[in-house]
Amino acid sequence: MTDQDITTDFLKRLLANDGDLLAEERLAQIHPSTLTPLLADLAPDEIQRLIDLLFIRHRAAAMLAGLPAELMPQILEAIPDQRLAEVLARLEIDDMLLLVEHLPTERRDGVEELLPPRQRRDLMHAELYPPDSAGRAMVTHFIALQPKMTAQEAIDAIRLEGDSSDAEPHLYVVDESQRLLGVVPIRKLVSNPPQTPVGHLMISESISVSSEADQEEAAQLVARYDLLALPVTDPDDRMVGIITVDDVIDVINEEATEDIYRLAGLSDADRVYTSARVSISKRLPWMIVNLGTAFTAASVVGLYESTLDQLVSLAIFLPVVAGIGGNGGIQTLTVITRSIALGEIEFSSGFRAIGKELWVGLVIGSVAGILAGFVAFLWQGNAILGLVLLLSMMITMTMASLLGAAIPLLLKSFGQDPALGAGVLVTFCTDALGFFSFLGIATLLLQKLV
Amino acid sequence: MTDQDITTDFLKRLLANDGDLLAEERLAQIHPSTLTPLLADLAPDEIQRLIDLLFIRHRAAAMLAGLPAELMPQILEAIPDQRLAEVLARLEIDDMLLLVEHLPTERRDGVEELLPPRQRRDLMHAELYPPDSAGRAMVTHFIALQPKMTAQEAIDAIRLEGDSSDAEPHLYVVDESQRLLGVVPIRKLVSNPPQTPVGHLMISESISVSSEADQEEAAQLVARYDLLALPVTDPDDRMVGIITVDDVIDVINEEATEDIYRLAGLSDADRVYTSARVSISKRLPWMIVNLGTAFTAASVVGLYESTLDQLVSLAIFLPVVAGIGGNGGIQTLTVITRSIALGEIEFSSGFRAIGKELWVGLVIGSVAGILAGFVAFLWQGNAILGLVLLLSMMITMTMASLLGAAIPLLLKSFGQDPALGAGVLVTFCTDALGFFSFLGIATLLLQKLV
Repeated sequence: MTDQDITTDFLKRLLANDGDLLAEERLAQIHPSTLTPLLADLAPDEIQRLIDLLFIRHRAAAMLAGLPAELMPQILEAIPDQRLAEVLARLEIDDMLLLVEHLPTERRDGVEELLPPRQRRDLMHAELYPPDSAGRAMVTHFIALQPKMTAQEAIDAIRLEGDSSDAEPHLYVVDESQRLLGVVPIRKLVSNPPQTPVGHLMISESISVSSEADQEEAAQLVARYDLLALPVTDPDDRMVGIITVDDVIDVINEEATEDIYRLAGLSDADRVYTSARVSISKRLPWMIVNLGTAFTAASVVGLYESTLDQLVSLAIFLPVVAGIGGNGGIQTLTVITRSIALGEIEFSSGFRAIGKELWVGLVIGSVAGILAGFVAFLWQGNAILGLVLLLSMMITMTMASLLGAAIPLLLKSFGQDPALGAGVLVTFCTDALGFFSFLGIATLLLQKLV
Repeated sequence: MTDQDITTDFLKRLLANDGDLLAEERLAQIHPSTLTPLLADLAPDEIQRLIDLLFIRHRAAAMLAGLPAELMPQILEAIPDQRLAEVLARLEIDDMLLLVEHLPTERRDGVEELLPPRQRRDLMHAELYPPDSAGRAMVTHFIALQPKMTAQEAIDAIRLEGDSSDAEPHLYVVDESQRLLGVVPIRKLVSNPPQTPVGHLMISESISVSSEADQEEAAQLVARYDLLALPVTDPDDRMVGIITVDDVIDVINEEATEDIYRLAGLSDADRVYTSARVSISKRLPWMIVNLGTAFTAASVVGLYESTLDQLVSLAIFLPVVAGIGGNGGIQTLTVITRSIALGEIEFSSGFRAIGKELWVGLVIGSVAGILAGFVAFLWQGNAILGLVLLLSMMITMTMASLLGAAIPLLLKSFGQDPALGAGVLVTFCTDALGFFSFLGIATLLLQKLV
């Protein structure tokens, strides 16, 4: 049986087993990350028993650290304060912080008081950094060397640290004021003579991130410069910690989810495993906003009721114009927001991007408009109707592309999240403009149309 | 001047400078990754000069390796065959493969012939793996140890390797048949007595990926188990390479882009910096498909032309029903496809997810329907119209959620990409169903409605 085959049923049977030792041994052979996805399906007493059994073999902390944020409240509730504090004390500060953040305020203080003094102090210190900052994602545990130390002294420093399971592959060289000078891969220490000063072995390192910076900035630096760990500095430029690449992967996945979700108007907390109640409460307000914009756009149709009255088949084409325009706008919006998220917009300036999308929209709008106009002509036997459809699709699609490109770039230049609300805004504009241009042109040409 | 301040203009001035030595020195101080985004704005002769100057200091390869795939053809065109072969020869096999893949076929063979024999053989071997497979993303360069070797012998092996810039932090322990037994972090070698056998120091390792597996699978394993590198095995279970975490980050970003893009019906090759011509050619076919589905949905409206004729204000509400239904469907689709991409669907079974979304859709459809019905009643002074809107929104939204959840899960169970085409299909269904339910119910209640 490999880790991939472990099911909830198997786990439940294992936990129901009387022989503690057997269950404990079997669990010890399973990687904690394999157990994480199964937690949501366990009853509170099963969770408690699982944590107790894993704790004996030092595996409970790793499993909890891998929990998705949205599941934490439910799982943490099942664990008694004392045991939770013991598990937390075994975690790196970034993971500890992540779990503590998901405790209800009233419980949080109680659990923090049960922590050993050193961990408690570290935690309180970490909590001072702003939410989603590099300071909150870093570990404060790293080996700092002076440039005059020899390779052998550095190796002694590693030996002093002992075996730590998530050991860092690099050592850092700092000056007397703790300012970062460079980085030394451990393999350089062993592949050079023991008396070499680490100052000669280090790679001079200028890439670091401020503890106040956003985690996303840290992730982009790690991705761009292919780092295994990124040094974090305080406002006085002193090195205070490192962000490791495994945390960066979590940040990247989280940010990608956020980007995808925002385009669809979803909240980060609305996941496949969150309860229906939570999902409803997250989606409903946005749906009401959407309803408001949909009615506002629809009121444009209301202005042209008399035109519709004279040629009711116009109603057939209204959703086509709005729908195709909306698609075009969302496509442009997706390309631009994704390029901002990946830092790609540097490959092309904002103005050039807007110009390009405008041109793309005009060409696609013209081709799609000609096709649609021709189909409408064949279907309704009305050439003027085809012309109205062509013109309104050209206008709507061109404007859709312009808005899809300009709105996120404007939001970004004002320091806002480029994707937040942009989807609703673009759809609203393309709907309203689609209705307005189609029915407006139809009204102008009404004599020739009917 | 820090790396962040380097602009295209500065780079152009530097390249126009007569003194080669000055430009060469200045460029050597800039991280190659900083130069990558600026390449797209240089003229071919500037690119050629930049590559020549960087090559002297061994920095050209790193810069080219960081290029987005879509820009490669344009940049590679500017570099003469001989120089390109020299640059390629300095790259790890995975990066070499990535660049060679973007050469036109007729040029590719010529450049490959200029490579040193060993690199040429490695490249031909790597090209045998399927596209996007783990085999293509791996480096074949890693240190393999026998379990009986001592820590000191392992350190000697590292010393023999010399300093490699992107050095791996782990060594691997294999048996006589090259089958993976475990992994040894370098720090364990130095923090234990030199005579300890590496078999005692290694962490027994069961996590590896087949060379034929998809890169996405490799990325999920690295993310889930917080690895710095993932061993790759051939069909006989022999270890043939490793995938490093920096490549995994690229895969994760690329897959996230793919997921976001597929929901909007975009091609991966359609980026902010691709030419308008390419973007148009990629988006147009999809837009025509969309036009087809939009017309098909619109033909439903055509069936009820006589109903519309009797109460033209119904046309106002058509886009509201279809639009809100479409939004709901895309939201569900986004939650489900993202959960599949992140491997989260394990936190909740497929059937449970469908059941939940169905319920969410029914509740949101009912609330939004009551609101919309009430607004329609106030606006048009017609209570029956409000009732029609309420009923059709409930039906459309519930079905939208069902389809948004079921379509990607079905696609996945048939081994297809869950997001591919799902967006168009969901929008088409919600449009058609929205029109059908709204106008159908209106026709049934027509006597009371007018």
